[in-house]
Amino acid sequence: MLDDLKQQVLEANLRLPASGLVTLTWGNVSGLDRDRGLMVIKPSGVPYDRLRAEDLVVLDLESGRRIEGSLNPSSDSDTHLEIYRAFPSAAGVCHTHSPAATAWSQAGRPLPCFGTTHADHFYGEIPICRTLTPEEVTAGYERMTGLAIVETFHHLHLNPAAVPGVLQHGHAPFTWGPHALSALDNSIALEMCARMALDTLALNPDAAPLPQHLLDKHYLRKHGPSAYYGQGHH
Amino acid sequence: MLDDLKQQVLEANLRLPASGLVTLTWGNVSGLDRDRGLMVIKPSGVPYDRLRAEDLVVLDLESGRRIEGSLNPSSDSDTHLEIYRAFPSAAGVCHTHSPAATAWSQAGRPLPCFGTTHADHFYGEIPICRTLTPEEVTAGYERMTGLAIVETFHHLHLNPAAVPGVLQHGHAPFTWGPHALSALDNSIALEMCARMALDTLALNPDAAPLPQHLLDKHYLRKHGPSAYYGQGHH
Amino acid sequence: MLDDLKQQVLEANLRLPASGLVTLTWGNVSGLDRDRGLMVIKPSGVPYDRLRAEDLVVLDLESGRRIEGSLNPSSDSDTHLEIYRAFPSAAGVCHTHSPAATAWSQAGRPLPCFGTTHADHFYGEIPICRTLTPEEVTAGYERMTGLAIVETFHHLHLNPAAVPGVLQHGHAPFTWGPHALSALDNSIALEMCARMALDTLALNPDAAPLPQHLLDKHYLRKHGPSAYYGQGHH
Amino acid sequence: MLDDLKQQVLEANLRLPASGLVTLTWGNVSGLDRDRGLMVIKPSGVPYDRLRAEDLVVLDLESGRRIEGSLNPSSDSDTHLEIYRAFPSAAGVCHTHSPAATAWSQAGRPLPCFGTTHADHFYGEIPICRTLTPEEVTAGYERMTGLAIVETFHHLHLNPAAVPGVLQHGHAPFTWGPHALSALDNSIALEMCARMALDTLALNPDAAPLPQHLLDKHYLRKHGPSAYYGQGHH
Repeated sequence: MLDDLKQQVLEANLRLPASGLVTLTWGNVSGLDRDRGLMVIKPSGVPYDRLRAEDLVVLDLESGRRIEGSLNPSSDSDTHLEIYRAFPSAAGVCHTHSPAATAWSQAGRPLPCFGTTHADHFYGEIPICRTLTPEEVTAGYERMTGLAIVETFHHLHLNPAAVPGVLQHGHAPFTWGPHALSALDNSIALEMCARMALDTLALNPDAAPLPQHLLDKHYLRKHGPSAYYGQGHH
Repeated sequence: MLDDLKQQVLEANLRLPASGLVTLTWGNVSGLDRDRGLMVIKPSGVPYDRLRAEDLVVLDLESGRRIEGSLNPSSDSDTHLEIYRAFPSAAGVCHTHSPAATAWSQAGRPLPCFGTTHADHFYGEIPICRTLTPEEVTAGYERMTGLAIVETFHHLHLNPAAVPGVLQHGHAPFTWGPHALSALDNSIALEMCARMALDTLALNPDAAPLPQHLLDKHYLRKHGPSAYYGQGHH
Repeated sequence: MLDDLKQQVLEANLRLPASGLVTLTWGNVSGLDRDRGLMVIKPSGVPYDRLRAEDLVVLDLESGRRIEGSLNPSSDSDTHLEIYRAFPSAAGVCHTHSPAATAWSQAGRPLPCFGTTHADHFYGEIPICRTLTPEEVTAGYERMTGLAIVETFHHLHLNPAAVPGVLQHGHAPFTWGPHALSALDNSIALEMCARMALDTLALNPDAAPLPQHLLDKHYLRKHGPSAYYGQGHH
Repeated sequence: MLDDLKQQVLEANLRLPASGLVTLTWGNVSGLDRDRGLMVIKPSGVPYDRLRAEDLVVLDLESGRRIEGSLNPSSDSDTHLEIYRAFPSAAGVCHTHSPAATAWSQAGRPLPCFGTTHADHFYGEIPICRTLTPEEVTAGYERMTGLAIVETFHHLHLNPAAVPGVLQHGHAPFTWGPHALSALDNSIALEMCARMALDTLALNPDAAPLPQHLLDKHYLRKHGPSAYYGQGHH
């Protein structure tokens, strides 16, 4: 069941170590079949070089129950599920502890859009999501993490399809996209933007965000009905 | 047509990911046959590992029209064309979002010549090119970017053959050279100089540029009629 | 004798260069058979690419005498031995001069727990161990280094099983674990946490440590009887 | 002639790109046969992946004249020659523009000995050599660079066998050693120490150098008659 989706989720997970985003087993990618209401995700703590399609775990989007697979799903599964439940444009989610994006998360600062590299992938600043309260941790840490991410987008009136990523304070980034590989690409882009923003601030602590008309231009030349970047098939 | 040029442009584009300059598909190299007035450039959004010589796109230098190739040319093509039109010494252009050079671009600071590494490739400071106005973006973003680069060199009375690179504020670097591979080498050198300059300023915020007599010495031992670096064939 | 242990210690040492933790021969891993009271350790100054299981040196835990092997053991052997003597949970020790962790050691600063990446491996701040006095250096540099590490944990009332690592002022990190490969993993995690903490402070010099309830949550979901990370076999 | 020496110089030069010390062709290693008074060095501007033993150039130590080889020797040859003429312990010299060491050179700061990694290779601070005057540049840039390095060691009463490296202000590092491969190892060690010292100062701008008794201990356990690091054959 879900062979194509499993293949794509496998490929996205296997690309994690080569991308430089993950150390040890600190990262996971999932993919969603929204019609069937099923999520495919990496099993917990399995090294990438031993991962096979049949190790992937299938969870029910609504109930969170395991439908297929004998291994424990990623411990972050409940966070992925909440993102899929609230953000209809997401059919892939990627979570890593990539170093520069994690430094921004640990510093508790949203990532400004300092340039067109950022604007090509994210329509403005990447928000920071608050830490959880002791009560939330007790109530269900991973699920409450997902709900806090959703809450952040609601409070800031952000469109998760246009800003497909978030930094959780004291934790690390989550990104999403229309499929598993695009969620991974957004994690790669986020890490590079986070690295360059660190150096931008070192050179100019008062660096200004990209002006609105350039943010519009770069985002819209790659996304939406007037996009003209690429070969017209994404 | 243009088989040799295509081969060189292909090779330069294929070297981009191995050089560490590009992430995802953020970079492109072009080459010019000035006698025929034809530019060869990477197609837009095609991954480097799938790129073949026959995917390259040929554009007319004067009109900008596509002469050969079925794919869309790089979205930055109009910028490349303006550089070729204004800088007669350029027959190769390279554009990347390499991290350190992009950080300088985002900080809006020209890159000082802090040492002989820089002087071996660039005769002094790499200038910063202003951001475009909303009117310019509407009139043709990529073409206006090229014109703003040309304007920067005119205003600063810079010789583009001696300073074969620029940082565009809020965007990233462009470099050029007498052929596609030398444009790529200048991007590699620029990135390394940008990285070292970041660390130089961290160690000494008042670091002075290389004295003029050393800038002259290093630039002229590699370039021009008295050059004695290498084996006399470049 | 000790073939399995030697194989594991060999594997852990061979992984050092690929992990990015070591330059030249600056690193060594050992393993302990606590029942027999024997330690297996890398020989001194042998390049990793020439290391074979039969080159490993076996030392007696109690006396420190060489039991097997014709090469000199790592010059850091006496430090490893003191760690095993004092910390009953340790059956693997890893020592490297990994760059970010060494920078913290040289700066003389303990490494704060800024996020869940750190909390997943270390239950709070990594302590800094004082430099040795001239008298201690004369009395036996490497052994006294081990005793100073043990003293640090006693003074700070730290549990070495929960905080399996230390930074020695002016020197570099040591980590340990229930076997050689987990000691190595802790060195890998420590280096990444040290790198991210450097960038965290660059972004926010007043960054706060992870709140206690999140430290508890992350450490305990991976460690101890209520752990639910992974597949239940570590 | 000099086949063994050529082989060693070739190997040292081929290791340069893999070591991460060089970009493009920015680096060269030479070796000396002091009995015959002959230096073997890389030809100028030849890419490492095309370099063969027969491309290496042999120069006479006393006169500087080319004795063997059809290619131009490295443009830095006269600097290498002056180092060999003045420092009797040197039989290998390595020059790179490795990024962190070059940043210290560009900042015009000597590299403090912040820890035992540094002390294992260099007996104290790495000095900074002044920039040349316009007159010296005219008189012979590369030879005068070598003489300024020698002058620096004389003025500071430094033993070049104990501090086998220097940073030239506005340029980059030179290191040396008893043979070509040890000169290369000293460049690798210098780069790593320079990188860690950058991060040490970022964490603690008032970081103190390693105390004298620890500098003595670490340097002397690897060097001189009482050395006990390694297997007793270096």
